[in-house]
Amino acid sequence: MNSSRKISCGIVGATGYTGVELLRLLHNHPGVSVAMVTSRSETGRLVSDLFPNLRGHCNLAFIQPDIDKLAECDVVFFATPNGTAMQQVPGLLERGVRVVDLAADFRIRDIDIWEHWYGMQHQCPDMVDEAVYGLPEINREKIKKARLVANPGCYPTAVTLGFLPLLRSGSANIHNLIADVKSGISGAGKKAQTGSLFAEAADNFKAYAVSGHRHLPEIREVLSLILGEQVDLTFVPHLLPIIRGIHATLYVELMESIDLQSIYEAAYESEPFVDVLPTGLYPETRSCKSSNVCRISVERPQDGKNAVIMSVIDNLVKGAAGQAIQNMNLMCGFDETEGLNTIALIP
Amino acid sequence: MNSSRKISCGIVGATGYTGVELLRLLHNHPGVSVAMVTSRSETGRLVSDLFPNLRGHCNLAFIQPDIDKLAECDVVFFATPNGTAMQQVPGLLERGVRVVDLAADFRIRDIDIWEHWYGMQHQCPDMVDEAVYGLPEINREKIKKARLVANPGCYPTAVTLGFLPLLRSGSANIHNLIADVKSGISGAGKKAQTGSLFAEAADNFKAYAVSGHRHLPEIREVLSLILGEQVDLTFVPHLLPIIRGIHATLYVELMESIDLQSIYEAAYESEPFVDVLPTGLYPETRSCKSSNVCRISVERPQDGKNAVIMSVIDNLVKGAAGQAIQNMNLMCGFDETEGLNTIALIP
Amino acid sequence: MNSSRKISCGIVGATGYTGVELLRLLHNHPGVSVAMVTSRSETGRLVSDLFPNLRGHCNLAFIQPDIDKLAECDVVFFATPNGTAMQQVPGLLERGVRVVDLAADFRIRDIDIWEHWYGMQHQCPDMVDEAVYGLPEINREKIKKARLVANPGCYPTAVTLGFLPLLRSGSANIHNLIADVKSGISGAGKKAQTGSLFAEAADNFKAYAVSGHRHLPEIREVLSLILGEQVDLTFVPHLLPIIRGIHATLYVELMESIDLQSIYEAAYESEPFVDVLPTGLYPETRSCKSSNVCRISVERPQDGKNAVIMSVIDNLVKGAAGQAIQNMNLMCGFDETEGLNTIALIP
Amino acid sequence: MNSSRKISCGIVGATGYTGVELLRLLHNHPGVSVAMVTSRSETGRLVSDLFPNLRGHCNLAFIQPDIDKLAECDVVFFATPNGTAMQQVPGLLERGVRVVDLAADFRIRDIDIWEHWYGMQHQCPDMVDEAVYGLPEINREKIKKARLVANPGCYPTAVTLGFLPLLRSGSANIHNLIADVKSGISGAGKKAQTGSLFAEAADNFKAYAVSGHRHLPEIREVLSLILGEQVDLTFVPHLLPIIRGIHATLYVELMESIDLQSIYEAAYESEPFVDVLPTGLYPETRSCKSSNVCRISVERPQDGKNAVIMSVIDNLVKGAAGQAIQNMNLMCGFDETEGLNTIALIP
Repeated sequence: MNSSRKISCGIVGATGYTGVELLRLLHNHPGVSVAMVTSRSETGRLVSDLFPNLRGHCNLAFIQPDIDKLAECDVVFFATPNGTAMQQVPGLLERGVRVVDLAADFRIRDIDIWEHWYGMQHQCPDMVDEAVYGLPEINREKIKKARLVANPGCYPTAVTLGFLPLLRSGSANIHNLIADVKSGISGAGKKAQTGSLFAEAADNFKAYAVSGHRHLPEIREVLSLILGEQVDLTFVPHLLPIIRGIHATLYVELMESIDLQSIYEAAYESEPFVDVLPTGLYPETRSCKSSNVCRISVERPQDGKNAVIMSVIDNLVKGAAGQAIQNMNLMCGFDETEGLNTIALIP
Repeated sequence: MNSSRKISCGIVGATGYTGVELLRLLHNHPGVSVAMVTSRSETGRLVSDLFPNLRGHCNLAFIQPDIDKLAECDVVFFATPNGTAMQQVPGLLERGVRVVDLAADFRIRDIDIWEHWYGMQHQCPDMVDEAVYGLPEINREKIKKARLVANPGCYPTAVTLGFLPLLRSGSANIHNLIADVKSGISGAGKKAQTGSLFAEAADNFKAYAVSGHRHLPEIREVLSLILGEQVDLTFVPHLLPIIRGIHATLYVELMESIDLQSIYEAAYESEPFVDVLPTGLYPETRSCKSSNVCRISVERPQDGKNAVIMSVIDNLVKGAAGQAIQNMNLMCGFDETEGLNTIALIP
Repeated sequence: MNSSRKISCGIVGATGYTGVELLRLLHNHPGVSVAMVTSRSETGRLVSDLFPNLRGHCNLAFIQPDIDKLAECDVVFFATPNGTAMQQVPGLLERGVRVVDLAADFRIRDIDIWEHWYGMQHQCPDMVDEAVYGLPEINREKIKKARLVANPGCYPTAVTLGFLPLLRSGSANIHNLIADVKSGISGAGKKAQTGSLFAEAADNFKAYAVSGHRHLPEIREVLSLILGEQVDLTFVPHLLPIIRGIHATLYVELMESIDLQSIYEAAYESEPFVDVLPTGLYPETRSCKSSNVCRISVERPQDGKNAVIMSVIDNLVKGAAGQAIQNMNLMCGFDETEGLNTIALIP
Repeated sequence: MNSSRKISCGIVGATGYTGVELLRLLHNHPGVSVAMVTSRSETGRLVSDLFPNLRGHCNLAFIQPDIDKLAECDVVFFATPNGTAMQQVPGLLERGVRVVDLAADFRIRDIDIWEHWYGMQHQCPDMVDEAVYGLPEINREKIKKARLVANPGCYPTAVTLGFLPLLRSGSANIHNLIADVKSGISGAGKKAQTGSLFAEAADNFKAYAVSGHRHLPEIREVLSLILGEQVDLTFVPHLLPIIRGIHATLYVELMESIDLQSIYEAAYESEPFVDVLPTGLYPETRSCKSSNVCRISVERPQDGKNAVIMSVIDNLVKGAAGQAIQNMNLMCGFDETEGLNTIALIP
């Protein structure tokens, strides 16, 4: 992006947490202008009415989603429920718009598995092949050339980045991986539901979807594709009484003794958004709050059988809106860190 | 305890969270009178000055700890830092006082291991042999006859009750147990330390002591003694931004297919304080808040290699003060549930 | 209540927070048996399925509300939305059932004002005259003889108990009272609404209904009736990111110098559930958590124009279910504190 | 600041929350380079070791505070306890360094009052006269020429901005102002003290320092100086279980009917960091979280005697570090909003 012209972005379905986070981050991006924001339910309402943090920064009102209007954008982000993007993406690609889908429509290549877990028929299975899984740490070059990027799920981002260097080392038993993962409540979105009420979720902690969560097949497929071999994974998500943040605690049986710290430091040495902590320091979710970084620690407790990897992200940033912008940067020729090089909020 | 006389109790070191919880629960016990409460630092101060919830219920002032005075009690609870009880227990036992130690002084039978993890020399190793590990679900009959009970750690209570039925079934690989455990902050006590500040711990989550935590050898020894075989355990504690509650997520590789639900229901059928949830329900920490119950669920996700067991307690009740009173009930001939049959606080 | 027979209670609409708190507290009452629990939406479901804290304590399933069935009870509690009780109360009273309404149907004597603020027509205005406003500290003798008690709102309970002794002293300017009041989120009920979501309400604070809140006319009427003169009140409610608790900070201009502390201590000397703190101590909401007590402090900062009164309660106990049981105790001849003499939860 | 050279800043005492927030915000400022960070207790330690959010952004280690070293800076921020800056400021000013003191040393012009409330003797009373009270909304032109700026307290910032337009209108009774103010816990700093523990402060709310708080004389003096007349103020601070944020609810008796909304909109029309909300919207603390804005609403409930003004800020930004940088911008010729024009974090 050598020209000084700003690219023009649209956000479809920006009334949720991913939408407002995209708006917050894009405002901070010198090369982008947010041209339109759509919402069926809030058409006509000022965006800053719904999100008072945007007062003085964003003067847009929500408009009806309309493909002709959206086609004026250089890039369109879908921050919609699952099943929406797949209906509109083909039309946008035809007209030369680049698309980042923050929902799950294009994350899983195996259509049968996708349809099983998402309980609907896929509307454009052909596009799934074209879509690039938008984890820059594994697909950077493909993303640069992509028209359509499937932004990864929040859990898969934290878990995949945590597992990958060790699994690639060949020293791990990939047939019994365990991911015990904890997520802040914003991961459940802004929908009014009893289980997400303050009086239900505060001062409380629990596991959920233990028998099976939609991010399980996504993680399994991504890891298996990279390793060229089927991995076995037990994945247990939990609900944390925090607003933002994911903490993945990963357990991997080691087949031989290796220098974990060196493997991870080498793997992520040149990654702008993955920070491997020094030996003995463990990551905390707030060290990523509001920022696009993933922080990782590795440990082998008591020189025992298992490596323990801890991986934290902000689920709304590296786990959603921030990673979407990182992908947009790659797709549009910006510096990969443009607009994302901010510092997490402590305290 | 057929007589209607109330037994007389003393609490040594009652300025912390375990102390105030003992006072709250003992007040609710019809057979007990709290005769004295000691504290070196707060001598002379009204207990209800420090803990305003006790206003109108407890008129005691803290007194200096004094063995002659304490010897007037039927039962003495030690709610002191590690290393205190072991200095005073022999004298009290000699004078016929029964003792429940809520600290770690008598929890581990292997003195070398204890001294390694607690960094001090044990003052009365002989008594460690006599002490009974106060987990009624495994040692009920011994506790009834005990003079000295070592009240289990909070993590070991949740983890041991969660693992036990499956490990006893013989169908589990006990050589690679994993316990991913999360605790509320009251587990760190009332000591003023930066890491426990609201502005540090709220809206945050992290693992700690991953390389080794003092409850690891305790759990390992208890399980190994019961099973008659050395178990291997990876134990990772995490700090939850909640006040009370422990949630243990346990991963056990199954060696054969078994009916997990039936095994757990049978194991705890007649236990007054262990509740096995129906299939498909998972426990939440608040379902135990302020009560002495441990709630457990079992699952085998995706019919995979691992059983996942979830076990929750209130760390200050079943994990400390409540279990201490349960032990006192057994030691003194009360009904085991006396004073403890209350309902958790929701919301 | 000299007989040892337990009285039989029913709860109409027990799926919300007031309902589960009634169940928790009634279970602890030696003279009461909960005979039935109704809910249109949850008919047939086990109560303990909805509220896992009740597992092992309550085996009832929700039934359809039916007046013939409810008429078998000695006392019926309405824990329903506003406007429900007024339709069923006349029939129950006719059949000799005593009723405590925890909603607002019978709180305000002036029907026009009630209809204005609640936006509906009153179905049995005659009964409003008969109903006794259930604040025992002002209406104890009337409550003992009442068939129908209107349980006060949570804000009015904290505010009225805080204002009353000073206003009665005759030394206050009652024409410009200010009540700055803060409530925990459980006060908004268990209804799924965006504003009560954890991700909206946690780590956040705001005022609401500043232009007018339904509890304003209730407080104004109660105080005016007691004083025999119209009071002027500015009432600003705020939403606290805590589950339970109300903290009222009251500002009253003093017309002359008086001994505030003595006035309050004398006023509440024999009240079992009002605790006036010693000079210099201020109440905190948690000192009432789960208990039926109201704690009050008085201060005159810098010997200035205003008295500042601080009053805290647990909105679900003294502000709802606990006070309802206190009223039931008075109506049915129990000791006023029966089942309510428990200690708040700290920490 | 036309030159492209960055100015050089130092921070004295940067181990607390104000320090880390200065570092976070200064990093975002294109015209500033943080040259040194001092701490007696942490000398030699990497700043990013203490504050992991700074990893990858700040490579400085803490150094000993040394006046010769500090004199190399263009601007020095004091983020020290009260009483420290007054010892070092004279030496720095002599050497041409500009200073912003975030502590209270230079906030109050009346030395007797300062010494009474802060319990120490002032070391350089002469400098108090020179110091400019750093609230740009009232002292912008003076700040531009100042060598020494006294950064206002967090409470005084929210309260003064809230009161000012109405008091200046001449329609208010300034002899009985009431400020009921609530602050997040980070206002108490990072010092390890029992009252700030998560297990003490979470799920809890209370007033404190009701008889007198150090920010009372500051607010009183500032308002009285501006109005040329002594104001009477009742000021009650409360502790909120949130990390960041202040919410001031102000009560002012109106002497005549006025158009509150217009007065406030006019007063702050051209202020970059004060946002007057439209009628009927009330501010929430999170709408300022991490940003330098103050949001204000005005209301006259029930057309009664009192105006109610609500004013919210982030206590660490507009209440401390952000305002300090706003002052630095003015002192050094930057655009006033440079580095501060960011969007608050929702959710």
